[in-house]
Amino acid sequence: EDCKKQELSNPADPYSTDPPRHPALVINSSKPFNGEPPPALLTDNYITPSALFFKRNHLPVPQIDPDKYRLQIEGLPGGAVSLSLEDLKTRFPKHTVTATLQCAGNRRSDMNKVKQVKGLNWGVAAISNATWSGASLRDVLCHYGFGPEVAAKAQHVQFEGLDRDVTGTSYGASIPLNKAVSEEGDVLLAYEMNGEDLPQDHGYPVRVVVPGVVGARNVKWLGKIVVSEEESQSHWQQNDYKGFSPSIDWDTVDYKSAPAIQELPVQSAITQPAEGAVVDRDMEEVTVKGYAWSGGGREVVRVDVSLDGGKTWHVAELQSGEKGQQPAPPPPPGRAWAWKLWEITIPLPEGAQELELVCKAVDSSYNSQPDSMAPIWNLRGVLSNAWHRVKVNVK
Amino acid sequence: EDCKKQELSNPADPYSTDPPRHPALVINSSKPFNGEPPPALLTDNYITPSALFFKRNHLPVPQIDPDKYRLQIEGLPGGAVSLSLEDLKTRFPKHTVTATLQCAGNRRSDMNKVKQVKGLNWGVAAISNATWSGASLRDVLCHYGFGPEVAAKAQHVQFEGLDRDVTGTSYGASIPLNKAVSEEGDVLLAYEMNGEDLPQDHGYPVRVVVPGVVGARNVKWLGKIVVSEEESQSHWQQNDYKGFSPSIDWDTVDYKSAPAIQELPVQSAITQPAEGAVVDRDMEEVTVKGYAWSGGGREVVRVDVSLDGGKTWHVAELQSGEKGQQPAPPPPPGRAWAWKLWEITIPLPEGAQELELVCKAVDSSYNSQPDSMAPIWNLRGVLSNAWHRVKVNVK
Ligand SMILES: [Mo]
Ligand SMILES: [Mo]
Repeated sequence: EDCKKQELSNPADPYSTDPPRHPALVINSSKPFNGEPPPALLTDNYITPSALFFKRNHLPVPQIDPDKYRLQIEGLPGGAVSLSLEDLKTRFPKHTVTATLQCAGNRRSDMNKVKQVKGLNWGVAAISNATWSGASLRDVLCHYGFGPEVAAKAQHVQFEGLDRDVTGTSYGASIPLNKAVSEEGDVLLAYEMNGEDLPQDHGYPVRVVVPGVVGARNVKWLGKIVVSEEESQSHWQQNDYKGFSPSIDWDTVDYKSAPAIQELPVQSAITQPAEGAVVDRDMEEVTVKGYAWSGGGREVVRVDVSLDGGKTWHVAELQSGEKGQQPAPPPPPGRAWAWKLWEITIPLPEGAQELELVCKAVDSSYNSQPDSMAPIWNLRGVLSNAWHRVKVNVK
Repeated sequence: EDCKKQELSNPADPYSTDPPRHPALVINSSKPFNGEPPPALLTDNYITPSALFFKRNHLPVPQIDPDKYRLQIEGLPGGAVSLSLEDLKTRFPKHTVTATLQCAGNRRSDMNKVKQVKGLNWGVAAISNATWSGASLRDVLCHYGFGPEVAAKAQHVQFEGLDRDVTGTSYGASIPLNKAVSEEGDVLLAYEMNGEDLPQDHGYPVRVVVPGVVGARNVKWLGKIVVSEEESQSHWQQNDYKGFSPSIDWDTVDYKSAPAIQELPVQSAITQPAEGAVVDRDMEEVTVKGYAWSGGGREVVRVDVSLDGGKTWHVAELQSGEKGQQPAPPPPPGRAWAWKLWEITIPLPEGAQELELVCKAVDSSYNSQPDSMAPIWNLRGVLSNAWHRVKVNVK
């Protein structure tokens, strides 16, 4: 008993102060904590409850006293700025954005079936949708002197987290300056998630929310912002979270040859029924559910569903709000940050014993998902967005 | 002789005054004129010579006297505006943009192989790259009163051509207002192509160039601009140039269910060698060439080439300028309007008698091309961007 308690609060274990997690989360790694909700739960709500929102931590969760919290800003003409949480909440208008975040490694398990890759074995649920509130990054940068003079030189906005590894290195990432300062970029310094203070696992007290951009750039426990001529020099910006040709292996990879992932490609997955589920023949039909989303503010405009492995297709119904409630008004072009849930009920093909369910989405730039994983396979297993396939039995 | 002359200038034939065309163009329709260059010629130049630039006319080419030309602008607070060609050239700074235009139907012939579609049977060359100069649409709209007041109501900018059908109906299209007025949208009212007056077939004296957006919205022989709450009500905006599910046929199509095509998805094609070409075994290697481009200002970041139908891949070399000259400086993020040419020389696999060459491109949002055409087949044969496949024989 004593032994266990000691282990839980072991000062030598930097993860011992991590917060409690919802027991339904499927754990891919416990230190650092990485977990995703069960697929069927994921699409029960248009806005993912915070406790079920996928958690992707690179390092131990830092313990931050909100009264002592300071956000540093560098690279603007007036010199370094230090903001308290109160400053951020009171000096700038509060903006609210509903945005889906997706891990670069979502659906890595499907890529692993082609050939083993390096990384957490995420299923289809390293993606979730929330309502975020906070100060607009544009407002904050403009307030402290951002203008054409800075824009003429700087090209990136770097973020540093307050989470650190044993050597003291912080998590870090950057985004292009034009995304950071665009009125239509909707980048937030968020202090609320779904109407409450950010949970500890999601970056309390402040994180960046970069709508339409890979999760890895939405830096949590934000400690510092640097407006710079350079991208973040962090491991995660320079040597990770990049896509390569399937021909590239660990011996031939040249990190400089590929751009850091920012906007993500179009994605969709089936959340119900599950792989191997049994569909009752007497029901005479099958209901298929899932989600679809695209990066860069591109709206999902169609989801096609197949029961026969992709030979014939049916158009699913899209849902852009909680079921039974009014859907959200259509977003302005290029600012569709939130996913669509979708659903379709299709008559069972006569005599079918097994069905291969497939979904594929199309976004407002008419990009579609690739048919298969092998041709987009890459050594880190990121950007896994081929058609999602689920086999079920009819009995 | 007389007879022929009479036919050429037949006043009953609205096409009799169409300009002469380069004899190398492959003609898909002569009235209206639609032609594309031979693929191998297309990628000989980074900037396509104007005479070889694909021509996509919906109607007869209008004969416009530059001295009598007027551009009407409606929907701005100050009331209707009428501009002469001289006004456009002298009242506004001249901007120059290198932008690739692609017809929505490029590569329709590949889609036709799946199942016959309705439309011109374009090969791989209904795409070309040119340098365009003219007034910035943003400058012109702002000069005549565009501002937040207009933006609060209007959502589209409509364009009407001076080309008309027998009933007097003009060609028409529209683009989203935010693209039209964005500093980063780079939309031009172009009066020059490759440093010279626009050729007659390309819209003389003024056309719209909407970088990153389907050719159909780049209205030629521009007669009128309308800032509006509504999209263009033209046939081409409402009932054509839209993408549908492969399950939709002419009996079930509901035009309102799909958005008008604006930004195009990632595309690439092989221009050399040609289908059925013979590769000399004694050369021990094969050189493959082509182009790659993506809509919405997304830069092509990689092209993968396969000799074995897509089982294994090689990364091609990208070219973003004329061969032997300095490449163009990298564009700002989201403003990569021009294509990349690409080339790769690969050793011939031992003993191979036939090769199935394949190319696929990846853009800066890491969107990739779908593997095959059948799943993106649509009744109008637009958005044909699956992997391009070319079979050659080794002898
Ligand atoms: Mo991630
Ligand atoms: Mo077109």
